Amino acid sequence: MSTVPRTLGELATRFGLELRGDPGRAIRGVATLIDADADQLGFLANPRYRLQLADTRAGAIVLRRADADAWSGACLIADDPYVAFARIAALFEHQPAATPGIHPSAVVAQGATIAAGACIGPLCVVEDGAVVDEGVILGPHCVIGRGCTIGAQSRLVARVTLVQDVTLGKRVLIHPGAVLGADGFGLAFERSASDHGHWIKVPQLGGVRIGDDCEIGANTTIDRGALGDTVLEEDVRLDNQIQIAHNVRIGAHSALAGCAAVAGSATIGRYCLIGGGAGILGHLSLADRVTVTAMSLVTHSIREAGDYSSGTPIQPNRQWRRNAARFKHLDEIARRIDAFEKETKS
Amino acid sequence: MSTVPRTLGELATRFGLELRGDPGRAIRGVATLIDADADQLGFLANPRYRLQLADTRAGAIVLRRADADAWSGACLIADDPYVAFARIAALFEHQPAATPGIHPSAVVAQGATIAAGACIGPLCVVEDGAVVDEGVILGPHCVIGRGCTIGAQSRLVARVTLVQDVTLGKRVLIHPGAVLGADGFGLAFERSASDHGHWIKVPQLGGVRIGDDCEIGANTTIDRGALGDTVLEEDVRLDNQIQIAHNVRIGAHSALAGCAAVAGSATIGRYCLIGGGAGILGHLSLADRVTVTAMSLVTHSIREAGDYSSGTPIQPNRQWRRNAARFKHLDEIARRIDAFEKETKS
Amino acid sequence: MSTVPRTLGELATRFGLELRGDPGRAIRGVATLIDADADQLGFLANPRYRLQLADTRAGAIVLRRADADAWSGACLIADDPYVAFARIAALFEHQPAATPGIHPSAVVAQGATIAAGACIGPLCVVEDGAVVDEGVILGPHCVIGRGCTIGAQSRLVARVTLVQDVTLGKRVLIHPGAVLGADGFGLAFERSASDHGHWIKVPQLGGVRIGDDCEIGANTTIDRGALGDTVLEEDVRLDNQIQIAHNVRIGAHSALAGCAAVAGSATIGRYCLIGGGAGILGHLSLADRVTVTAMSLVTHSIREAGDYSSGTPIQPNRQWRRNAARFKHLDEIARRIDAFEKETKS
Repeated sequence: MSTVPRTLGELATRFGLELRGDPGRAIRGVATLIDADADQLGFLANPRYRLQLADTRAGAIVLRRADADAWSGACLIADDPYVAFARIAALFEHQPAATPGIHPSAVVAQGATIAAGACIGPLCVVEDGAVVDEGVILGPHCVIGRGCTIGAQSRLVARVTLVQDVTLGKRVLIHPGAVLGADGFGLAFERSASDHGHWIKVPQLGGVRIGDDCEIGANTTIDRGALGDTVLEEDVRLDNQIQIAHNVRIGAHSALAGCAAVAGSATIGRYCLIGGGAGILGHLSLADRVTVTAMSLVTHSIREAGDYSSGTPIQPNRQWRRNAARFKHLDEIARRIDAFEKETKS
Repeated sequence: MSTVPRTLGELATRFGLELRGDPGRAIRGVATLIDADADQLGFLANPRYRLQLADTRAGAIVLRRADADAWSGACLIADDPYVAFARIAALFEHQPAATPGIHPSAVVAQGATIAAGACIGPLCVVEDGAVVDEGVILGPHCVIGRGCTIGAQSRLVARVTLVQDVTLGKRVLIHPGAVLGADGFGLAFERSASDHGHWIKVPQLGGVRIGDDCEIGANTTIDRGALGDTVLEEDVRLDNQIQIAHNVRIGAHSALAGCAAVAGSATIGRYCLIGGGAGILGHLSLADRVTVTAMSLVTHSIREAGDYSSGTPIQPNRQWRRNAARFKHLDEIARRIDAFEKETKS
Repeated sequence: MSTVPRTLGELATRFGLELRGDPGRAIRGVATLIDADADQLGFLANPRYRLQLADTRAGAIVLRRADADAWSGACLIADDPYVAFARIAALFEHQPAATPGIHPSAVVAQGATIAAGACIGPLCVVEDGAVVDEGVILGPHCVIGRGCTIGAQSRLVARVTLVQDVTLGKRVLIHPGAVLGADGFGLAFERSASDHGHWIKVPQLGGVRIGDDCEIGANTTIDRGALGDTVLEEDVRLDNQIQIAHNVRIGAHSALAGCAAVAGSATIGRYCLIGGGAGILGHLSLADRVTVTAMSLVTHSIREAGDYSSGTPIQPNRQWRRNAARFKHLDEIARRIDAFEKETKS
């Protein structure tokens, strides 16, 4: 990565941070406290890494005021060092400028509308009626289907598929392999005389609407609505391999970790945090600020903010087997206790 | 969506439904009871939405005879309103006709066989020995590997990969990102003098066979068999992000919800329903009409039809933690009760 | 599959196996004991299939010495029949030779370095600064981003995306749909006066390093590090739809089954076996030779080799519901027992 060096003084001014040390000192990159060199900026956000201050060779550190006295070198003092670090690190991100225009290998339909400054990468397909706004970057191998709209400054990194009737807000970032707007899983079971019944596909006629500033991870899937749309409000953050079924609605500023899955027509509030591999059944609704821990299954609506969990703790298999065997008879165990209590009290 | 309007009389005749109301009334689309306008058809299949009859502005409603008296407007009476609705909705689905022929940007090997009426979309790759039958539509970015056969009227929406030796029946529908025919996960562990052992890849030499009328969701993976084939019988329905390992066999008319996973050589019966995120271990066999609830793990074969579950219920984290901690000692708890009972009885 | 036939004598010599039977007998393929024909080689590795010896029509069988006396036909005796079978089967794998060179439909940047013997398939994209080594095969639709390096003899089957700064060792095999080097899920929550807070993206500046002889399954995702790299040591085997978050490190010879997920900065030792759908929380560390059973969630570091599990057993739903309801009060149940014991003892 060859990026422009920045002085500590420049960083302090730009992000409104207090500087202790030489404002002329040049910083060429960011790193963890353990890996940082003398021309790199480290950061201390999590108190459990405070001991690493003793050994770091970082040229300067972003940290809280409370930690600043434990460090004799140059530092930038921030109320929230992780946020400050994120902003500074972005300066050192090496994103070569995408060349505006349509790569000659891309297949763009005549009926597609591409803004002048947009960048359509190699081997993209843009179908009739698609609209690609100002400043959008489509990396290689993206497919933008009929009736899809991509808001300004959005970036589809590579090989993203928007199937049909997908609307992206501004500054949306989508990682490779994501599929938005595929048919939801809608089936009607038809009993019939000739066989014991079979499935009829229920047409999926809705779309997908993604708000501004959303981020969608690699190989994540978001289905189009059956009737009406599947909706992510603004600033929703989805990690990799998440499954969002038809007609789900996710409130603004919620974040879902990898492999989480939300079944059809479920509604998730604002500022929710859904742990990795967690599942939410269909037609449920979660209030604002609900946190679900990893691999929990939500089987009823949750009306109050707070943390929720299911599952059992990890154990050595030999012990777990004994406990698990007992779980199969837990109701009987509880009944026996009830019986005792009655006996004893009588 | 601009689709041809249909009269209520036409719908009644076409689908064998009883009409109450003006047969000449024009219907231009379908919608939920809440969203339907005067030129749209709503439906009432689930009794819990019956109250919405009071407020809907739908031009007509598909419903059961038992619900018809609660509605004074036009209606189509059906034994199964959801099935009737699915069939009617299909009339209003806007699928622009695919142009038959091979898109000039597609890369089709000389040794591939493409039926005259088939449609090979932009940037597809069709390898030697592949056979694409009459009426097949390959959307953009599909890869059809050696020895693959696609039955008549099948549709691969976009960016579907059939790796090798995959046979699709007729009217198969596959959504973007699906991968069929990748190598199964076959490994032999070789002990050796030079290290503490290492893995040897077991060649995967089988194929994948998909029956007629199957549907396969976005980013779902179905591996080729090790020896012999991985098989989906007819009318199997797979949602998104499902993993089907080598040599699995799934019986006709079974449906698996998103993120379910079936390990190698497992056999699932006919008319089974596997919930989202559920897992089925390798070499097991499930009888016909087995239902597994979401995120359950099947660890032994199931010989009788019925519903099966594992896991624990969602709770506020604070309560869950206390219960989960006790689970680690459940066997000991049960032993203490056994001891009591002995004592008390003696 | 038309592959060259091999004589039993040739196989015995090549793989150092003891032959019983006619060395001139021709073998044209491999199969299971049940399916094998007279010109095919079967194998018996798992003792529970020993009964199949009675009925097999296999021309010869690879088996252990202990099983050889139960079989009157030709056989190859191996210490580890499964390893021997894997090696022999590879001879019968039909992999048509890839044509070296760059397919005319591929888009290769001027600044990419492609070894003379490498094969770049149709519609691949290779970006500036990418390096593709000797004997590498890229199947159709692969995207090799900036700064990626692919070691000699590696094979990307089809539609694999290496986003950026991904380094593959030698003989790495990657199946379709895999995404390596996408951004990790790094977010800082910024409180602000104007709203109730929102997310800031934390730039992901690290890479991905994959050791020699690794195999990576279809639709698996491996994110780039935030700072520093995400690392798979040599001979790590990942099945399909696995999620590896940023800065994870997986030790040599470990294998993860389908749909497993490892959260950020977790460290997995050498020779670990992670079951399908299992999850490992962030920042944890697992010792060497830890086995985690399917769909278990690891919530704390594991310092000792052994087998570990969580979850509850599958049951008929009616019984499960009663037990699960009791789980919600398990702590209370345990307290009641404590109280009894005190009472009884007093």
